[in-house]
Amino acid sequence: MKWLSAFTLLLFVSVAQASEEKPKNIIMVVGDGMGPAYTTAYRYFADKKTSPMIEPTVFDRHLVGMASTYPARVSGYVTDSAAGATALSAGVKSYNGAIAVDENKQSVKTVLEQARLNGLKTGVAVTSQINHATPAAFSAHNESRRNYDAIANSYFDDKVNGQFALDVMLGGGWKYFIRDDRNIVDEFKSAGYQYIDDLTQLDSLKPGPVIGLFGDEGMPWALDMPDKQRLPALVETAVKQLTNDKGYFLLVEGSQVDWAGHSNDIASAMAEMHDLALTLEWLEQYVQKNPDTLVVVTADHSTGGFTIAANGNYQWDPEPLKAVTQSLSSLAKSMVNSKTPMDLAEAGLGYKLNETEKSLLQKVDMTNSKALYVQLKKLMDIRSNTGWTSSGHTAVDVQIFAMGAGKDHFRGHMDNTNIPKIIFELMQSK
Amino acid sequence: MKWLSAFTLLLFVSVAQASEEKPKNIIMVVGDGMGPAYTTAYRYFADKKTSPMIEPTVFDRHLVGMASTYPARVSGYVTDSAAGATALSAGVKSYNGAIAVDENKQSVKTVLEQARLNGLKTGVAVTSQINHATPAAFSAHNESRRNYDAIANSYFDDKVNGQFALDVMLGGGWKYFIRDDRNIVDEFKSAGYQYIDDLTQLDSLKPGPVIGLFGDEGMPWALDMPDKQRLPALVETAVKQLTNDKGYFLLVEGSQVDWAGHSNDIASAMAEMHDLALTLEWLEQYVQKNPDTLVVVTADHSTGGFTIAANGNYQWDPEPLKAVTQSLSSLAKSMVNSKTPMDLAEAGLGYKLNETEKSLLQKVDMTNSKALYVQLKKLMDIRSNTGWTSSGHTAVDVQIFAMGAGKDHFRGHMDNTNIPKIIFELMQSK
Repeated sequence: MKWLSAFTLLLFVSVAQASEEKPKNIIMVVGDGMGPAYTTAYRYFADKKTSPMIEPTVFDRHLVGMASTYPARVSGYVTDSAAGATALSAGVKSYNGAIAVDENKQSVKTVLEQARLNGLKTGVAVTSQINHATPAAFSAHNESRRNYDAIANSYFDDKVNGQFALDVMLGGGWKYFIRDDRNIVDEFKSAGYQYIDDLTQLDSLKPGPVIGLFGDEGMPWALDMPDKQRLPALVETAVKQLTNDKGYFLLVEGSQVDWAGHSNDIASAMAEMHDLALTLEWLEQYVQKNPDTLVVVTADHSTGGFTIAANGNYQWDPEPLKAVTQSLSSLAKSMVNSKTPMDLAEAGLGYKLNETEKSLLQKVDMTNSKALYVQLKKLMDIRSNTGWTSSGHTAVDVQIFAMGAGKDHFRGHMDNTNIPKIIFELMQSK
Repeated sequence: MKWLSAFTLLLFVSVAQASEEKPKNIIMVVGDGMGPAYTTAYRYFADKKTSPMIEPTVFDRHLVGMASTYPARVSGYVTDSAAGATALSAGVKSYNGAIAVDENKQSVKTVLEQARLNGLKTGVAVTSQINHATPAAFSAHNESRRNYDAIANSYFDDKVNGQFALDVMLGGGWKYFIRDDRNIVDEFKSAGYQYIDDLTQLDSLKPGPVIGLFGDEGMPWALDMPDKQRLPALVETAVKQLTNDKGYFLLVEGSQVDWAGHSNDIASAMAEMHDLALTLEWLEQYVQKNPDTLVVVTADHSTGGFTIAANGNYQWDPEPLKAVTQSLSSLAKSMVNSKTPMDLAEAGLGYKLNETEKSLLQKVDMTNSKALYVQLKKLMDIRSNTGWTSSGHTAVDVQIFAMGAGKDHFRGHMDNTNIPKIIFELMQSK
C-alpha cells in the first residue's frame, strides 16, 4: 500500500509537471559578472534603514540554485564572458574567448537558434553593444569575441532556418554596425527592420523586427541616464515586439555589472544592479500575467573580487552609494580643468567631503580624468568599506533564479552547461 | 477533472511530506566562515586534473538554498560568529558578540535546548574550543562571547529541564575547563561523564555522556594532524554516543575554516574544508542508512574576503595547496633558528622554491616565526593566485545544504533566522 501510493504520487507529480513545464516563451537573463556578493550587497543597498526589517529583493524571491562557471580545461578554472556565455547558450564548455564554438572552433547550436528552428521569434536586449560576448554567443559563432566586426556582419549574413538570427536587437554598438566599410543598420532597414537610436523612440515602434542602437559601444552607465535606468525599457519593448502566438526566446543582459566590477567601481556596480533588479521586477509582474513564460536568471562569473566589507572592519555602508548623482567616470571628466572641482565632486558624490577626502583628491593631477576616476573610486571604497582583489574575473559559483513555467527544473547545484541543456529539453518537449 | 487531480496531488504530497519530514535526529553543521568562495574553491582543490570532468563535491550534491547573515541593526550588515550562531541557534537577530541572548541581553531558547526539553540527547562536536562562539550559542547564554570561563562554567552549572545542556562535548578547551580556580572536567567526571583527551581514546568510549578535549584552545590545524583530518572522527563518535530511541540533536562545526580565513591562509582553508567535506561524506552515508535523520549545513558568514583568482589574472591554481605537508604556521615555527630553513620550507610546502620565492623568504627575519608565517602565506597566494581583502568577515550570503528527513523545507533563499525556525517547527510536529 505504501509502495502503491508512492508510485501513484510519482505518476501524478510527473504528469502535473509535464503539463506545467512547457514554457511558450523563454527569457534568459544574464547578470554579467554578478556573483553572490553583488546580489547580497544589492539587498543592503536597497534596504531602507528606516524600516525595522531588511526587505528581500527580487533576487531573494526567486533563488533556486547555484551554478559552477569553469571553462574548458585548457582555460583553467576562471572563465571569461565568452566561454561563460557559450556554456550558457549551447551547454558546451569551451576556451576563454570562444563565441558559440567548441574547443575545436566548430560551431555549436545555441538555445536561441533552437528557438528559431522551432519557429519562435528571437531577440536580445542588453546594455553592452549587441555584438558583445554574451549576446554574440547566443546569436553568432566566432573563434574570438574580439572579432566584433565579423560578429556584427554575421548578424546580417548568417541565417538560421533561412531567417536572420534575431528579430529584435536592442543595446549599443553604432561603431560596429555603422562603419566606413559597411552599414549593417542600412542593410537591416532594407530588409524591413525598423531602426531607432534614441530610447524615446522605443514607445513609437510598430509591430515587426527592430534594431535599436543607443551607444557607440555600450550604453551610458545607468548612473548617467535621466532616471538611472534603461534595461527595463529595453526589455519591456523587446517583449512587446516579440510577443506572438508561437512564442519567443529573449536574451537579456545586465552587461555593465561586469564593467563596474572590472573598474572596481562600487557606485556603478550598485546602480547597474538596480537597473537589473528593476528589470526583474517588471519580469516578475509579466510572468504573473503570463504564466506560460519561463524566466531564468544567472551570471556568467563574478568580477573584481568584490567583497562586502574589507580591511578587518565589520561594516559595509551603502549610504554614500545611494547619494551619488552621476557616474564617477563622468564626474571625473567634468572635474578636469574645472575652476571648482571640489564643488563638482561634492555635487556628484552627493555628500560633503571631509578633510582626508579633500586631500586625497587634491593629490591627483586635476587634468587627468583617469587618475581622478581612480581616486573617486578609492574615496567610495573607503566610505563604504568595499574590498576588491582584481580587475578581472573570479571563479566563485553564481546563483540561479527562476520564475514561471518549468522553474523547478533549475533547483539545486548544477554546472552552468546544464542550464541550456534543460532549456533544450523544455523546447523539445513542446 | 484537472482540478480534482491537482487537489489529489496536493493531498498526496502533503501527507507524504508530513510523514517524511519529522526527523528523529537533527544534525546542524556550521562551516564557520564558509562563504560561497570556499565551497567553490574546494571543488577545484578536490578536482583530479587527470580526469576529463570536474567532479561535483558533497556540497554540490546537497545544495538547497542560500541565507542572508546580517546581525541586528545595531551591528550593521556584517555579522560576527556569535550573532551568526545566535541567529542559527535561536532564530533571533542580535548584536555582534551575543551568545544566545537578544538585543536586551535576555536569554533566547535554542534548538538544542528545545531538543533537550523534548527528551532528546544533545551534543557538540567542533574543532574550536567547545565554549567558542558557535557551540556556546547553542548550549549557553552570555552577553559576550569573550566570557569564555563563564560560558565553560555554565555548561556545568546551568541546567535545561534539570539536566546538563550537553551529553556529548568533543573539541578543544583545556585552558577553560581545567583552570586554577575550577576544574570543570573533574566536576563532569564526578557527575558521571567519561573524559578523554586524546583522539585515540575515541574508539574505547563506553555508552553514556562524555567530555573530550583535544587542545588548549582549538584543536591543531587539520594540516598538522596525522591523516590531515579530525572532525570526521569526532562526529562519528558523537553520533555513536548520542544514538538512542528518542533521537538526538548534534551541533557540528568546522570551526577553523574561519580561522584560516582570518589568517588569510589558503593552504589551511582548503585543508579545513577537506576535513569538513570528509565529515559531510560520512554524514551522507549515515543519512542513507538512517533516513529519519535531518542534516542541515550552512555557514555563519564568509571570512577574509577570499576570492578565487586575483590581480587581473584569469587563473587559480590549487596544485601547490595540495602539495603542502604541514600547516604554514607550524612550518614557520620549525624554520626559526633552523640551519636549513629553505630545505624545511621546500619539505613543508611540497615543492621546489624558485629564485623569487627564495628571495622573498630571505627578506624575512628568520628568528620571527610570525613574519615567516606571513611570508609563507604570501608565497602561497602568489603561487595559487588567491585574493583576500580582510582579516575579518564579509557579508556575502552563504549556502544551505540539506540531506534527509525534511530537507526540502530549506529550499530557496531565506534569512538565517529561518533555519532554526523551521527546525523548531519540525521538532514541534513530532
